[in-house]
Amino acid sequence: MSSIEDKFKALATDNAPGQEVRQATGNIGNLMVGTVLTGTPVDFSHGDVDAFTPTPGSLEAFLGAVEAGGRQAYTEYRGSADIRAELADRLSTFTGAAVSGQESLILTPGTQSALFLSVAATVAAGDKVAIVQPDYFANRKLVQFFGGEIHPVSIDYQNDVTGAGLDLAQLKTAFEAGVRVFLFSNPNNPTGVVYSPEEIQAISDLAKTYGVTVIADQLYSRLRYEGTTYTHLRASGLPENQVVTIMGPSKTESLSGYRLGVAFGAPAIIERMEKLQAIVSLRAPGYNQAVLRTWFNEPEGWMNERIAQHQAIRDDLVRIFREAGLKVRIPQAGSYLFPGLPALRVSLQDFVRLLRHQANVTVTPGTEFGPHHSNIRLNFSQDHKAAVAAGERIVEMARRYMS
Amino acid sequence: MSSIEDKFKALATDNAPGQEVRQATGNIGNLMVGTVLTGTPVDFSHGDVDAFTPTPGSLEAFLGAVEAGGRQAYTEYRGSADIRAELADRLSTFTGAAVSGQESLILTPGTQSALFLSVAATVAAGDKVAIVQPDYFANRKLVQFFGGEIHPVSIDYQNDVTGAGLDLAQLKTAFEAGVRVFLFSNPNNPTGVVYSPEEIQAISDLAKTYGVTVIADQLYSRLRYEGTTYTHLRASGLPENQVVTIMGPSKTESLSGYRLGVAFGAPAIIERMEKLQAIVSLRAPGYNQAVLRTWFNEPEGWMNERIAQHQAIRDDLVRIFREAGLKVRIPQAGSYLFPGLPALRVSLQDFVRLLRHQANVTVTPGTEFGPHHSNIRLNFSQDHKAAVAAGERIVEMARRYMS
Repeated sequence: MSSIEDKFKALATDNAPGQEVRQATGNIGNLMVGTVLTGTPVDFSHGDVDAFTPTPGSLEAFLGAVEAGGRQAYTEYRGSADIRAELADRLSTFTGAAVSGQESLILTPGTQSALFLSVAATVAAGDKVAIVQPDYFANRKLVQFFGGEIHPVSIDYQNDVTGAGLDLAQLKTAFEAGVRVFLFSNPNNPTGVVYSPEEIQAISDLAKTYGVTVIADQLYSRLRYEGTTYTHLRASGLPENQVVTIMGPSKTESLSGYRLGVAFGAPAIIERMEKLQAIVSLRAPGYNQAVLRTWFNEPEGWMNERIAQHQAIRDDLVRIFREAGLKVRIPQAGSYLFPGLPALRVSLQDFVRLLRHQANVTVTPGTEFGPHHSNIRLNFSQDHKAAVAAGERIVEMARRYMS
Repeated sequence: MSSIEDKFKALATDNAPGQEVRQATGNIGNLMVGTVLTGTPVDFSHGDVDAFTPTPGSLEAFLGAVEAGGRQAYTEYRGSADIRAELADRLSTFTGAAVSGQESLILTPGTQSALFLSVAATVAAGDKVAIVQPDYFANRKLVQFFGGEIHPVSIDYQNDVTGAGLDLAQLKTAFEAGVRVFLFSNPNNPTGVVYSPEEIQAISDLAKTYGVTVIADQLYSRLRYEGTTYTHLRASGLPENQVVTIMGPSKTESLSGYRLGVAFGAPAIIERMEKLQAIVSLRAPGYNQAVLRTWFNEPEGWMNERIAQHQAIRDDLVRIFREAGLKVRIPQAGSYLFPGLPALRVSLQDFVRLLRHQANVTVTPGTEFGPHHSNIRLNFSQDHKAAVAAGERIVEMARRYMS
């Protein structure tokens, strides 16, 4: 079965966020410079739902679903009709373009599932697919898994340019070369930069001209910092049948433990996604989907407070990294930072392992997001004080291992 | 994108269980013979978790996980190490062959996901795969989705033979022809028949001889009726690296609303499944997986009572169908019945729609499980009285539409 083995080689998760516990410690002891740096352990590989707790009312919504029983345990594969109707209204308002609960919305087990199903529903073996570098680590793997041909397009992940700094000439060249699908996250993961209105319009116009289907992963689009203008691709004039938007309440809302996501847009693609969901996980999350009733429905002021808290952590970490001479863009949304490291005398993978074993700090290597051997990704949705102290340990470690 | 459209044609869910609400009513009015048959609506497309409620303690286990917070929201992709360790012990005892929580067990969002991941991890485009007819509707679709070549093997779904009545000569021919993977459910879905010890041994011996990987879907293997001998394939002498077993607490335990499943066996396959889970749904169900602590850990006597209640419904329905002259095997386990209908003057699909609109009874057409145009499937995990009355309405409807 060599063909199946090849297929899975591209899916390595050894350095993926959350899987660090499965890594061998290896020769860390021999590489270590200086003593252990003590401090509260911080796992920047994902947000800390103990520091930022789930949306008020989420557990009550879940309990209501258990109480409702079978009606909520067994829904249509694409999710409960009444929850879809509720959500469709709120997503229409949020994105500025109509969503039909009946035809253009599907509920999935986690935002990852929405992404998987949308790529599976649009990419066949041999199809050309444009993805951004750097971008969410699964994008590349998904395209590879379905046998698509990757056409990478760059953003400026190092300098504070306007918008994401998307290389539009590269995007146009890729579309001209026959790209069928363009997949990107906005805000970008791992940098937190937001595409400018002009960039979104340019993507939309190019997609329209070349008949490209666009999958816009907007997982972090609610957590926007002061002064950020956010533009929804689906409201940019691109025909509905060419765009699918992915979101979920796992991040800003800290509902990750409930594993919930949604996709909305092109009815034909949503229908394929439902057919596929039938064999991937059968149906939308049973009781859990009721937690979506709290989504875009939070108590007055709750979201603003959460944004302000994240902005304060962002500002402290950016300051610490910049004072130490590390290059880092200021995230305009979301809770990721993607600082660049100085040239090191150890490999990036070893530095990341040293950070974990010597400094009690878990980060994700930049190589998960593209060919970025000098960067690390941090999810700074953490306890503020612990995050700042861990940021200082990262700086000290970078000094120790500088070449 | 014609190749992607072709790929999804094979995934039609129009007649799939639970999706009836999306069907058009069409010309039902013109076909209807006689008046409406009144009675409590019964949806035999799945078990009724209001009639048979979730395992005692399941909600408490869930609440404990929410209380635990981040530790339970974010686990290894394959699931929480301590829950896997607990379960591995119980699954070893249940199946009679060792399971390693660290290396050979993965937790998934629903048993369907375990099935999807195991097929994805073993079947590449062009691979020959043997499946049983009739069998669970997703088996065929999964093989088709991954581009496998289907080699069907029959069981005797009409006569009360010993075991499933597997056509071993057909199985051997398929293996000789180069089949790489054999996928089957035991107890069989839709008939509820259980493979005899001799049949399991024969499958095991053939798989060993021909180097075939076997995926055994044992979702219903705990709900066994009086006098049934159950044999676990994984304890039959087949090398560990050739067998993956799929189970879950959605059925007998009525925990379907929590969407939980497990796969255990060949470490190399489990590892591939985890890599794939990373891009399909990212990680094992967050809080929900804690509900597995109640699994194989139910209160004394609870399972026996549940089995006795199901056996009583089974006996009543088999009697009703047989008295009316419908051919039906007696299920030895699980909660499915697969009665044969007389020749009808309407198509099977129309009869199923008539049942729903005229008699308030939802069933799944036999064509979902293979080329079975004269059968319907019932999940009789229902309120006893309502199920019996609905069974009588099915019989009356069969009389009315007989050709």
